[in-house]
Amino acid sequence: MSLQERLVTGDVRALARLLTLAENNDPEATRIIKELYDRTGNAYVVGITGPPGAGKSTLTDKLVKLLRGQGKTVGIIAIDPTSPFTGGAILGDRIRMQDLYTDPGVFIRSMGTRGHLGGLSRATQTAVKVMDIFGKDYIFIETVGVGQSEVDIVKTADTVIMVMVPGLGDDIQAIKAGIMEIGDVFAINKADREGADRTKIELEMMLDFGDHKDWRPPITKVIALDNTGTVELLENMFKHREYLEKSGELRNRRFRNTREELIQLVQSRLLELILQGTDKQAKLEGLVDRILSRDIDIYTAVEDIIKKNFNQVKF
Amino acid sequence: MSLQERLVTGDVRALARLLTLAENNDPEATRIIKELYDRTGNAYVVGITGPPGAGKSTLTDKLVKLLRGQGKTVGIIAIDPTSPFTGGAILGDRIRMQDLYTDPGVFIRSMGTRGHLGGLSRATQTAVKVMDIFGKDYIFIETVGVGQSEVDIVKTADTVIMVMVPGLGDDIQAIKAGIMEIGDVFAINKADREGADRTKIELEMMLDFGDHKDWRPPITKVIALDNTGTVELLENMFKHREYLEKSGELRNRRFRNTREELIQLVQSRLLELILQGTDKQAKLEGLVDRILSRDIDIYTAVEDIIKKNFNQVKF
Repeated sequence: MSLQERLVTGDVRALARLLTLAENNDPEATRIIKELYDRTGNAYVVGITGPPGAGKSTLTDKLVKLLRGQGKTVGIIAIDPTSPFTGGAILGDRIRMQDLYTDPGVFIRSMGTRGHLGGLSRATQTAVKVMDIFGKDYIFIETVGVGQSEVDIVKTADTVIMVMVPGLGDDIQAIKAGIMEIGDVFAINKADREGADRTKIELEMMLDFGDHKDWRPPITKVIALDNTGTVELLENMFKHREYLEKSGELRNRRFRNTREELIQLVQSRLLELILQGTDKQAKLEGLVDRILSRDIDIYTAVEDIIKKNFNQVKF
Repeated sequence: MSLQERLVTGDVRALARLLTLAENNDPEATRIIKELYDRTGNAYVVGITGPPGAGKSTLTDKLVKLLRGQGKTVGIIAIDPTSPFTGGAILGDRIRMQDLYTDPGVFIRSMGTRGHLGGLSRATQTAVKVMDIFGKDYIFIETVGVGQSEVDIVKTADTVIMVMVPGLGDDIQAIKAGIMEIGDVFAINKADREGADRTKIELEMMLDFGDHKDWRPPITKVIALDNTGTVELLENMFKHREYLEKSGELRNRRFRNTREELIQLVQSRLLELILQGTDKQAKLEGLVDRILSRDIDIYTAVEDIIKKNFNQVKF
C-alpha cells in the first residue's frame, strides 16, 4: 500500500512518516496533502498556551483523557523551546504525558522551536492538516505563550485555552498581558495556591476592558494535578465551540486563518524563488555588498528587485 | 529648515518626529533615510536581552551612564510587551531610566510589541538607521528575550549582552537556553543573590559545548543597582567590539544582517503589492472561500498566485 492509502486506513506509522516528511518540506508530503485536501477541515483545533510553569502539559493530559473517555481521538502538537547546543527539543513537561503515549487513540508530536524549513508556524499548520486527514477528532497545539511567533501559532486554533497561575511576578504578568486577548477560555491552574482568587478578580477586571462581542471568556479555577475543575473547563471549551458554530464565527475565524496562511505561503515561496541557485545567491550578495559600502541604499535595492521580478499582482 | 536639515544639525525634536514617521511607515521617512543613507553604518549597536525580571533596564541605565562619562552619545530603543487592552506599551522598568530622559546626549524610544506596520523588526531597524544618521555613537536595543521575534531583533546588534539572574525556575531556564547562543557577552545580574556562582558554573558549562571560533563569551557578575561590576561588563563589551573589528567579523555580521533585512523588505513589499486595492482583496478572499469549501487546495492556490505574478527572479 502507498503511504497515502496507509494514512487513510489509520496506519499510525504512516501518520508519523508523513509528519516527518511534512516537517522536512518534502514535496511528497505536499503532494499527498493536496491529494487528500478534501479530508481536511473536520478536526477541531484547540490551542493551549500560558506562561512557563503554568502546568499546560498536565492540563492537556487531563483534558485529552476526558475526551478519550468520550471516545474521541486526539492529536497533540507540543511545541518546545529548543536547546541551542543539542539542537533537540527540551522535553521537560512532556514526560508527564507519558501514559498518553501508550494510548492508540492519541498521537503526540513534539516540535522544537528551531530548524523548520519555512518556519515553525508553517510546520505546525502542516502537521494539523496531516492529523486532520488521518481523522483525529481533536488536535491540541500546546505552546509556551511568550513571544510573537508563539502567539501567531496558537491563534490559528479554533478555541484558545489560556492557562494562568496565581502569584507570578510582574514581568511575567506583563508578558502574559501581551497574549491575554487571544484567550477564548481561561484556566487558573494550581488554584490551591495563595492568590488564586485575586488572580481571578484581576483577570475578570482585564476582561471587563475587552471587546468580546457575544462571547465573554469564562474563567475556570483548576488543579490539573488532581483533576479538580477539568470537567468544567472542558465544558467551557465545548460551549465556546457551540457558540462559534451557531454564530458563524467558526467559519469567520477559519477564513481569517486560511487567508493569513495563504499569504504566508506565497511569501515563503517567493523567498525560495529569490534564494534558489548559486547564481542568484551571488547576485544577492553583491547587492548586499553595495548596500554595506553605501553605494546604494537598501530601499532602492528593494525597489529594484521588485521592479525586475514582479508584474502587476493578479489572482 | 527642512526636517532633513534639522536632523543632521542635531535637532532632537526632528529626531523624534522622524522616528514617528518611520514607525508609521510614512514614505517621507523612507525618502529622508534614502537621502542620508551614507551617514548610516557609524553607530555601534548593542542588544540587551534576557529573561523577564533580570534587571535589563537598570543595567542599560548604568552602562549608558558610563558611556556618557566617556563623552559618547547614546540612543536607546526599548521594546516593551504591549498591553492588549490599552494598546500602549507597559512601561514598568522604563521608569528606572527616568534620569536619562533629562540628559540631552541620550535619546530613548519605547516601542510596543504590537501594531507596527511591516512588523516590529522592521520598525526597530528603521529606528536604528534614524538614530545612526542623527549621529549617536551607541544605540542600545533592549528587549525581553523570549520568543523568536524578539531573538530576531536582538540578533541584528553588533554585540549582544545577555543578562541572566540566579535562581530562575526550570521553565524560564529552558526559554533562556533557547536564546543563549546569541549572547556575545554575559552578565549575571543580582549577583549578591544565592546561587550566582552556581549559575556562572552552569553557564560556563553550556558555553563549553558551544562553537565560539575565536571569541569565547566572557561572563561578568554584576549588581546593576549599586553599579558593582558594570565597568568590567562595559570593558568586555569593548573587547568584543575590538575582536569583531580586528577579525573582520563585524563586517561579516553586518553583511548577514543586511542580507536578512533586504530579503525581509522584499517580502514585506510583496505583501503590500498583494494586498493593495479593494479589487485584489476581494479576489484574494474569493480564493480563500474556495479553499475553505475544498474547491481548491491551499498549495495549488499558492502556485497559481506565484505563476500569475512572478517572472524568473533577477537581480
